[in-house]
Amino acid sequence: MELELLYEGKAKKVYQSDTDENHLILSYKNDATAFNGEKKAQFTGKGRLNNEISSLLFQALDNKGIPSHFIERLDSTTQIVQKTDIIPLEVVIRNIATGSITKRLGIEEKTPFEPALAELFYKEDRLGDPLINDEHALYLTDIKAEELAGIKEKARKVNTALTEIFAAIGVRLVDFKLEFGRNKEGNILLSDEVSPDTCRLWDIETNEKLDKDVFRQGTGDLITVYEEILNRLEAQL
Amino acid sequence: MELELLYEGKAKKVYQSDTDENHLILSYKNDATAFNGEKKAQFTGKGRLNNEISSLLFQALDNKGIPSHFIERLDSTTQIVQKTDIIPLEVVIRNIATGSITKRLGIEEKTPFEPALAELFYKEDRLGDPLINDEHALYLTDIKAEELAGIKEKARKVNTALTEIFAAIGVRLVDFKLEFGRNKEGNILLSDEVSPDTCRLWDIETNEKLDKDVFRQGTGDLITVYEEILNRLEAQL
Ligand SMILES: Nc1ncnc2c1ncn2[C@@H]1O[C@H](COP(=O)(O)OP(=O)(O)O)[C@@H](O)[C@H]1O
Ligand SMILES: Nc1ncnc2c1ncn2[C@@H]1O[C@H](COP(=O)(O)OP(=O)(O)O)[C@@H](O)[C@H]1O
Ligand SMILES: [Mg+2]
Ligand SMILES: [Mg+2]
Repeated sequence: MELELLYEGKAKKVYQSDTDENHLILSYKNDATAFNGEKKAQFTGKGRLNNEISSLLFQALDNKGIPSHFIERLDSTTQIVQKTDIIPLEVVIRNIATGSITKRLGIEEKTPFEPALAELFYKEDRLGDPLINDEHALYLTDIKAEELAGIKEKARKVNTALTEIFAAIGVRLVDFKLEFGRNKEGNILLSDEVSPDTCRLWDIETNEKLDKDVFRQGTGDLITVYEEILNRLEAQL
Repeated sequence: MELELLYEGKAKKVYQSDTDENHLILSYKNDATAFNGEKKAQFTGKGRLNNEISSLLFQALDNKGIPSHFIERLDSTTQIVQKTDIIPLEVVIRNIATGSITKRLGIEEKTPFEPALAELFYKEDRLGDPLINDEHALYLTDIKAEELAGIKEKARKVNTALTEIFAAIGVRLVDFKLEFGRNKEGNILLSDEVSPDTCRLWDIETNEKLDKDVFRQGTGDLITVYEEILNRLEAQL
């Protein structure tokens, strides 16, 4: 294909669709990065696995009444999505304390958050994606206060839906990161990806990690655990 | 005096009053610390200056309808205050970008914030007083959402009042940190201190720094600039 490459990120390439100017083709790469790009590796098959997992999850969310930028999977490593103007926020929802928050706030590993905790990070690699509060978000982006409230409400709905979807395949949704963008009509839409790169997923029985933490921590084979997630989702959905 | 020392902090000693169990005696020390205690020094006269400045400012706030824990100045380095159960939050209000926020969020020095920006930090030396959001604050402390909203509203009122008080003496209030505590009746009260240790104060004409930044940055004599603030306040109030 001879599509125009608009942007290359750490995990995906973004191409302009040649049939609809409001559509993009996201091409999932085999690259894995962690610690703000400090740790890097390539895994044959990762692009396909994340593209397929993300496609299944966006469809499952849509079936539960939560629309997103996702239009359809094109081939093994690519999907068609609505073009959005990404709001430079990472919206994180945490059901269980693990990772950065435990050190940052001195909270014990595995402490449950009830209700789930929402955090915003400013999506800016140059600054290391710092934690921000709502006032920072309104200052740093062009969203309005009501839109920010809507984004957080949407993120909590995604949490409820994904928690159910994963529970049905014996997986605990520990935490995850979402991105939102504004489409041509000005509506804010769930964008980016939902995959083991962006979710922490623990086996409900064994607490085995089935996500990018096996790469971050060097404790397991990324492809094996991503395949496990895809297999379970395909058997269920 | 033979009072019971309840706690010694970086800037003040806290004694139990021997005449009223709900009163404390705050004794301002000559110690200056910066960068979470990494940089330390002693300045003869600092305790007196901060005690006198803080007393004048709490009285001036009270005159503008903003009560605090302050009861009266006892002698040159001590003051009597209402005992409160300090909520472990540092409430920061920023009118102009300077210091940590410029690096953290890539905001240019001296950018004005309109409206002023409010930030919360978790008061926990062990963790380096990390920035937190509202949900963290509700998780980490025993305050309710309405109380947190009340604290922020109070902090904004303090900002309006202090901005006026300082403008009258030719000083720009750049930013400041407040602490709040719960008194015996369960009411949340402005506590701790308001001084050049906890406010950034710039001369309106020259932008000369008249606060602890001269110590942090090693760019001036702390006693000289604190004396300047006290002299101007005494002439005005
Ligand atoms: N629907 C969309 N429209 C436009 N850009 C998108 C959309 N969905 C995701 N993106 C952006 O695509 C880029 C590539 O993704 P990725 O490789 O994950 O980037 P990053 O290195 O920033 O994590 C990111 O900037 C992401 O925000
Ligand atoms: N009204 C009050 N009642 C009880 N404690 C107070 C009151 N006002 C201030 N404090 C506390 O007094 C302690 C001593 O102050 P300081 O030396 O500034 O401490 P720190 O090293 O924590 O900054 C702090 O823990 C502060 O929160
Ligand atoms: Mg990404
Ligand atoms: Mg203090």
